[in-house]
Amino acid sequence: MTIILPEDSSEPLYRQVRNALERAMRNGQFDTVPLPSSRSLAEELGVSRNTVNLAYQEMVAEGLIVAEERVGYRANSAILNEKPVEGDSLLRETRVDWAQRLKRRLDEDLPIIKKDYNWQAYPYPFIYGQVSNSLFPITAWNRALRTSMEYPHVHWSLKDGGSGDDPLLVEQLRTTVLATRGIRATPEEVLVTVGAQHGLFLTARALLRPDDEVAIENPGYPDVAHILAGAGAKLVPVPVDGDGLRVDRIPSSARMVSVTPSHQFPTNVSLSKPRREALLASAHRHDWLILEDDYDAELRYVGRPAPALRAVDPERVIYVGSFSKFLAPGLRMGYVVAPKPLIEQLRLERRYTVRHPPGHIQRALALMILNGDYQRAQRKQRAALREKWELMAKTLKLAFGDSFKAPTGGTSMWVRLPDGVYADQVVAEAAKNGVLIESGASCFSANHPEAQRYIRIGYAAIPVESIVPGLSKLSKVIHEAGRTPNATSTILP
Amino acid sequence: MTIILPEDSSEPLYRQVRNALERAMRNGQFDTVPLPSSRSLAEELGVSRNTVNLAYQEMVAEGLIVAEERVGYRANSAILNEKPVEGDSLLRETRVDWAQRLKRRLDEDLPIIKKDYNWQAYPYPFIYGQVSNSLFPITAWNRALRTSMEYPHVHWSLKDGGSGDDPLLVEQLRTTVLATRGIRATPEEVLVTVGAQHGLFLTARALLRPDDEVAIENPGYPDVAHILAGAGAKLVPVPVDGDGLRVDRIPSSARMVSVTPSHQFPTNVSLSKPRREALLASAHRHDWLILEDDYDAELRYVGRPAPALRAVDPERVIYVGSFSKFLAPGLRMGYVVAPKPLIEQLRLERRYTVRHPPGHIQRALALMILNGDYQRAQRKQRAALREKWELMAKTLKLAFGDSFKAPTGGTSMWVRLPDGVYADQVVAEAAKNGVLIESGASCFSANHPEAQRYIRIGYAAIPVESIVPGLSKLSKVIHEAGRTPNATSTILP
Repeated sequence: MTIILPEDSSEPLYRQVRNALERAMRNGQFDTVPLPSSRSLAEELGVSRNTVNLAYQEMVAEGLIVAEERVGYRANSAILNEKPVEGDSLLRETRVDWAQRLKRRLDEDLPIIKKDYNWQAYPYPFIYGQVSNSLFPITAWNRALRTSMEYPHVHWSLKDGGSGDDPLLVEQLRTTVLATRGIRATPEEVLVTVGAQHGLFLTARALLRPDDEVAIENPGYPDVAHILAGAGAKLVPVPVDGDGLRVDRIPSSARMVSVTPSHQFPTNVSLSKPRREALLASAHRHDWLILEDDYDAELRYVGRPAPALRAVDPERVIYVGSFSKFLAPGLRMGYVVAPKPLIEQLRLERRYTVRHPPGHIQRALALMILNGDYQRAQRKQRAALREKWELMAKTLKLAFGDSFKAPTGGTSMWVRLPDGVYADQVVAEAAKNGVLIESGASCFSANHPEAQRYIRIGYAAIPVESIVPGLSKLSKVIHEAGRTPNATSTILP
Repeated sequence: MTIILPEDSSEPLYRQVRNALERAMRNGQFDTVPLPSSRSLAEELGVSRNTVNLAYQEMVAEGLIVAEERVGYRANSAILNEKPVEGDSLLRETRVDWAQRLKRRLDEDLPIIKKDYNWQAYPYPFIYGQVSNSLFPITAWNRALRTSMEYPHVHWSLKDGGSGDDPLLVEQLRTTVLATRGIRATPEEVLVTVGAQHGLFLTARALLRPDDEVAIENPGYPDVAHILAGAGAKLVPVPVDGDGLRVDRIPSSARMVSVTPSHQFPTNVSLSKPRREALLASAHRHDWLILEDDYDAELRYVGRPAPALRAVDPERVIYVGSFSKFLAPGLRMGYVVAPKPLIEQLRLERRYTVRHPPGHIQRALALMILNGDYQRAQRKQRAALREKWELMAKTLKLAFGDSFKAPTGGTSMWVRLPDGVYADQVVAEAAKNGVLIESGASCFSANHPEAQRYIRIGYAAIPVESIVPGLSKLSKVIHEAGRTPNATSTILP
């Protein structure tokens, strides 16, 4: 029960009680329960029972409450809804015109990834971007969180850190996580973020001016397009082929190039060595900055991952990393590695957006890396994903023949549909059969002729035993769709 | 050790090993330790020992490494620093001009709160904005985090939630936290944020156009000034007196009014009832939006807190709440309550800045509220702060006499210095005596004549037994400063 009397009021006490009750009734507190007895309310408010009775009598007279036998008083919602609140008439006079007030979002015309966040309800959730709860190192994470609440860690877990980061996490990132990507960084070149996306956002905010040209991958990560466009950039979609981004198609006038070299989003192809070299050389020639989104380089199952672009060029490459793919996206932990002047600015931008990522999560993650639990979890996660990857590749090859080429890593497969079969149609039909997959359409630029030709099949969250039966159902759906062309589809000629 | 061979390379294997080693040396991996033995490196890389030996021989010939008896090879940093990296000559040619690249921050001229984040090193840390670790409900929080990793909660803790919030937390906010402030809200009117500051940021971003006038409190919260100015607003500082914001001094042309009605930041005065009514009436008259930062309303020790402005006017008031003051700032949890069209836009803005606040923390907080641990912790926190508040008020009254008026709540006291004594001077002298206090200067608009007249004494983090001795030392410092006027001070005439 929440009845609040005004702090200072010249009105008689019973009127104050009456008004507070009216407000509580309007807030719905007594929609389903009766009002309190005068005895208990008097006690609660520290006023006399007589005062409460006076308030109740007045409300009965006004019809605001009605007495009910053996129950007490009930709110009379019919009267409440009609009668204006005392003294509120002025306040009710004007309305805010939100349509006019809200700023136009610069990215409002871009396609949005459609996700079914209720994916656990599907028997075959081939969703991308989620992880399997059973692979998350729950025991180790709980232990790290608990230790982070003990001396001396508790200080770092609870305090307001201003614009600073947890030095232990920065140290672990530098010596362990970044080192495996070949990246060397001083503490002044590292910033912890609320997920990789936060790093992309801060970078765009610090660097992009209205109409700056930014090259993005096409198909590519829709969210980075939103972030860059939201910062005022003019997006230049650049095609992707089997070797990754077509560097030769990037306009020299670009100010920045956004790229996912390890496993291109969404195709999962790796940027080839000649393309990497061409990209870095062109960046120097044309004064481009490179935004390297290295969200899941560790999840490679064949050969070794190439060193990060930032390992080769620490001058022009802004590196964004994430813990979302092999720990959990719900933790929202990421980081940026970039030259010191940029990190300093990102730190200020961060200070006035979220201040800093939660200290408790930073310290727990640092402890997990320090004690090796993180590395063990990563190995376990990679082994489990590798098994799924093999099963996926084998099954998809059977279904699609040589036209399907499995990627060397990642957590999804990008499948080109047979001619005459459209992604939206397949996604909808598959869902009816309990199979959740994603259309590739939102990864393409607007009106791209290939937008409806691809689907994305994620395998990080689905249990391994569901993969083959799920793909078999999907294969049937695609086969059926090919036999009964969608006559009503107006998406493609 | 991190030696990475390129993914695909036409170079002979021994050259690949050599180049990888050179890169590792340049990254400082062998600054202090010798290079690995050829046997262990061959094993690590999965190449023959002969290949490694060839690589080592070539590097010896180039002078890049030197053999040392009984140790092995060591990097020759002198040569490394002089010689350009193979194939890197082009890359080294150009530098980024960061000064030109970085966007000018619109808030760069505003004063910044200076905080000593090493406050625990002071014997008397009268710091504002930090909490006492000993009052944090560690056991209950650990339990809630652990439960959040169990079925069915684990799903909500780990998953990518897109633009959504944890429905359990939203429910607990609505029925418990907001209800105690008299606020009624539908789930569509609530957004969870990474601290209150994130809520202020998203609101500014969604609503403010370049040169929109926004009234702010003077003195006021410097960070909100940064956030509003960063969104392009033209700030209009409005004076504050013993009844809070001088509503009559807000220009009618303002588009938004930023206000801290419960305990004004930094003075801790409460906005009086007539001022509240005038503010809401004027807002309707002039089409202002009200940004209500209600960061610590619960921490009131005399009388009852007045209902939130949003409880009275759900049309024009955007309410921002925080868990920083009575749980911990390091958790970075806050929320916004506002009309549905605005929340929808804030949700989109949030999606492309941080996606969502960490799921694990959302769920654990929800469980703590649900099982009552949160309310118990709040009562304990409030009781402890009340005790400190009494001690602070009593001691400061003794030191400053009737000129000092204790506030009715909050976690700090705002003290006017005697004539001829300046805040920066007192802060510096106090620090020498182990007493950490804050200058009020950064809370005032630029060149404000009163900027050096106030100090802020926070008492949330300091142990209760340190309050009286700390204030006694501070009192001596102020007394001394009054006797020896700071002849070199050029801050004030």
